[in-house]
Amino acid sequence: MTVADQAKTAPLRIAIAGLGTVGAGVIRLLNTNRDLIAARAGRAIEVIAVSARDRTLDRGVDLSGYDWEDDMTELASRGDVDVLVELVGGSDGPALAASRAALSAGKGLVTANKAMIAHHGLSLAEKAEEGGVPLKFEAAVAGGIPVVKGLREGTSANALTTVYGILNGTCNYILSEMEETGADFSETLAEAQKLGYAEADPTFDIEGVDAAHKLAILAAIGFGSKVDFKSVRVSGITQIRAADIAQADALGFVIRLIAQADVEGEGKDARLLQRVRPCLVAKDHPLASVDGPTNAVVAEGNFSGRLLFQGAGAGDGPTASAVVADLIDIARSEVGAPFSMPVAQLQAFPPVEPGHRLERTYLRFTVNDRPGVLAEITAAMRDADVSIESLIQQGRANEGGEVLVAMVTHEGQERCVRQALALLEGSDSLTGEPLVLPILRN
Amino acid sequence: MTVADQAKTAPLRIAIAGLGTVGAGVIRLLNTNRDLIAARAGRAIEVIAVSARDRTLDRGVDLSGYDWEDDMTELASRGDVDVLVELVGGSDGPALAASRAALSAGKGLVTANKAMIAHHGLSLAEKAEEGGVPLKFEAAVAGGIPVVKGLREGTSANALTTVYGILNGTCNYILSEMEETGADFSETLAEAQKLGYAEADPTFDIEGVDAAHKLAILAAIGFGSKVDFKSVRVSGITQIRAADIAQADALGFVIRLIAQADVEGEGKDARLLQRVRPCLVAKDHPLASVDGPTNAVVAEGNFSGRLLFQGAGAGDGPTASAVVADLIDIARSEVGAPFSMPVAQLQAFPPVEPGHRLERTYLRFTVNDRPGVLAEITAAMRDADVSIESLIQQGRANEGGEVLVAMVTHEGQERCVRQALALLEGSDSLTGEPLVLPILRN
Repeated sequence: MTVADQAKTAPLRIAIAGLGTVGAGVIRLLNTNRDLIAARAGRAIEVIAVSARDRTLDRGVDLSGYDWEDDMTELASRGDVDVLVELVGGSDGPALAASRAALSAGKGLVTANKAMIAHHGLSLAEKAEEGGVPLKFEAAVAGGIPVVKGLREGTSANALTTVYGILNGTCNYILSEMEETGADFSETLAEAQKLGYAEADPTFDIEGVDAAHKLAILAAIGFGSKVDFKSVRVSGITQIRAADIAQADALGFVIRLIAQADVEGEGKDARLLQRVRPCLVAKDHPLASVDGPTNAVVAEGNFSGRLLFQGAGAGDGPTASAVVADLIDIARSEVGAPFSMPVAQLQAFPPVEPGHRLERTYLRFTVNDRPGVLAEITAAMRDADVSIESLIQQGRANEGGEVLVAMVTHEGQERCVRQALALLEGSDSLTGEPLVLPILRN
Repeated sequence: MTVADQAKTAPLRIAIAGLGTVGAGVIRLLNTNRDLIAARAGRAIEVIAVSARDRTLDRGVDLSGYDWEDDMTELASRGDVDVLVELVGGSDGPALAASRAALSAGKGLVTANKAMIAHHGLSLAEKAEEGGVPLKFEAAVAGGIPVVKGLREGTSANALTTVYGILNGTCNYILSEMEETGADFSETLAEAQKLGYAEADPTFDIEGVDAAHKLAILAAIGFGSKVDFKSVRVSGITQIRAADIAQADALGFVIRLIAQADVEGEGKDARLLQRVRPCLVAKDHPLASVDGPTNAVVAEGNFSGRLLFQGAGAGDGPTASAVVADLIDIARSEVGAPFSMPVAQLQAFPPVEPGHRLERTYLRFTVNDRPGVLAEITAAMRDADVSIESLIQQGRANEGGEVLVAMVTHEGQERCVRQALALLEGSDSLTGEPLVLPILRN
């Protein structure tokens, strides 16, 4: 047996940084499915050492068999460890320091940290490639769904035309609950927080930032582009009212927060459009039935056609499943370029201005209940060349004397809708910012 | 640069046996996405030689750059080829001979041949493991959906509890067309044949054999069991009438041909149940919206929860996408045990007798239109301990003086339903074999 062969059967030795629900989940999974994992990985996966902020906390798993390190950077560079599993979170700080230390010390890195990969994925991947060590982050996108693998390997033969999906379980839970109960946003958010589906500070989720992190990662893998988180255009779900969901329903749609990346043009003219925004989704679209905290990703390839990956987008079990799948790949020596091709070959696609793109749009105005308002709005639409497909005016004003006007446009350039809204800006007929929701193409 | 490193950047040289629509699709794909594939694979993938039955046929692709071999076994063992791509089809014959020759000659093997893998996958995998060469068959199951990879690698950390799905596009097309049009089976089959969704001899598809081939492969990968095609219990869709689909619809279900594998018990007591049968699927189940020739697979893991993979189950583009994804994996040296663990470690799970399993059932009888028939049927149900949830008797007899009685049972042991049918056997009230369709658990 050669030294290389020995290395292939010796246990894969890991260190875990961060022992929150996911860290504890990974330990529980490695214990529960130990024999199965060893059979599939071709060798055992052994936890050598762990680190977390608070040593005294009871995490419901027995840590007595592992070394404890107070310093995560020390943990990351231990001589008796092959791979660091980073589950601390946060784009910078101790997570990044420990990750860099691990790669510098020639260790592999497995992480569930979408913020870190969205911000520093390229430099980490470069470091990993230089050192010839694995960097894997299946758990960073869509929890337990093997979609990083799906795009990196499953669709690898294809030029993708679009990648989109439901990437934030909190938003999807809130939107599908609003659909179910008819309750308004803030009420549903409070309920979601009580049930643990939303964090105490839900900003990153409900403003779409979390989905944007994940989208930037998927776009890079799917299109062979450099991760470009800062170019993602993001709008969240805080403006959605119960009335919008009811209107959408009447028109045959549900509302979902959709993260979508498209490439326009080819070769040197290629441009990348990345957006996170609530959309109307036709009820017969596969994403319309994705409810609660479930995630789903659609990828369309030039040979594969449309593929859908769906499953639990968060939770300790599913996330641990993704982390350990990465470890099994590493144990099997199935480890190539983290972003499907070497960083040096990823293209830097400039972001595209979407004004010329064609879409149908749902528009909702809140207006004063007085004559002439509808004429004013429809005149602005006409002047901006926006063609209205259907329009509904709520019968009765609410307590504030406000009525709701909702419309769906025919397919037209996005810039026309924006121009119509510019024409209406400052009008004292409108009592609030209009809501613009694109209709997802079927 | 070492010799090993050189091998990693030299082109991967392939030979293609079989130039039907899929073979031509693979060539088209390798040409269309050439640069992308080279970037992702880390090296070029080059077709060296091809073989098919008829050299003169115009296949719509230019073959002039490739050597032609009349003998597929010669093709498989050429010195200038690294991998044989077997796209001939058929469980034995030239496909198997060429595949064995390739592995014996130390070549890798990529195949789309589900019949061959279902029958000879274990011996081929053993040969590949002995030779340290790759054997991959993503395209053998569910066309362009990366579900072999999904189970082999994506869910590798999990003990799966069940794997099931829609694995035959022909049946799914026929059933969803019957749903759409209200037409009967034979009429819809004829239409499907005209449109190319069913073959001239559709037996393997409509009798469930094709789905059984694929299920046996998925079960082996998902559960770590030896491929056991002969134990799959198979029933097809030829008995389904338009009236059954209408009844199912009224009850909130659609009918789909479901291939399902479950493991019962653990360790030495583990038993495997593999079945292909038409089922009633609740309209809010993700598989209910899988229409036309689309395929979908659900895998439930003890940590991942429920995962769904969906996409095109056939066609030259999707199938070529899967074949070339396998080639890219091989070019990347990402090649482990074909069935997720070495053949020697796969368990031989004995098949389980399903009589004790609990399920709800849809039963349809065709009976003579005369008094007392319903009493006879319900008495048999009572005597066999089958509890009826709902029952509908068609109001009017058809031309043959026959009426339809459809019922749904409460959850009960499968053997009780069989016992009830045994009690009714030979009754001259029944004008035909009763139809029994299980209701898929949500």
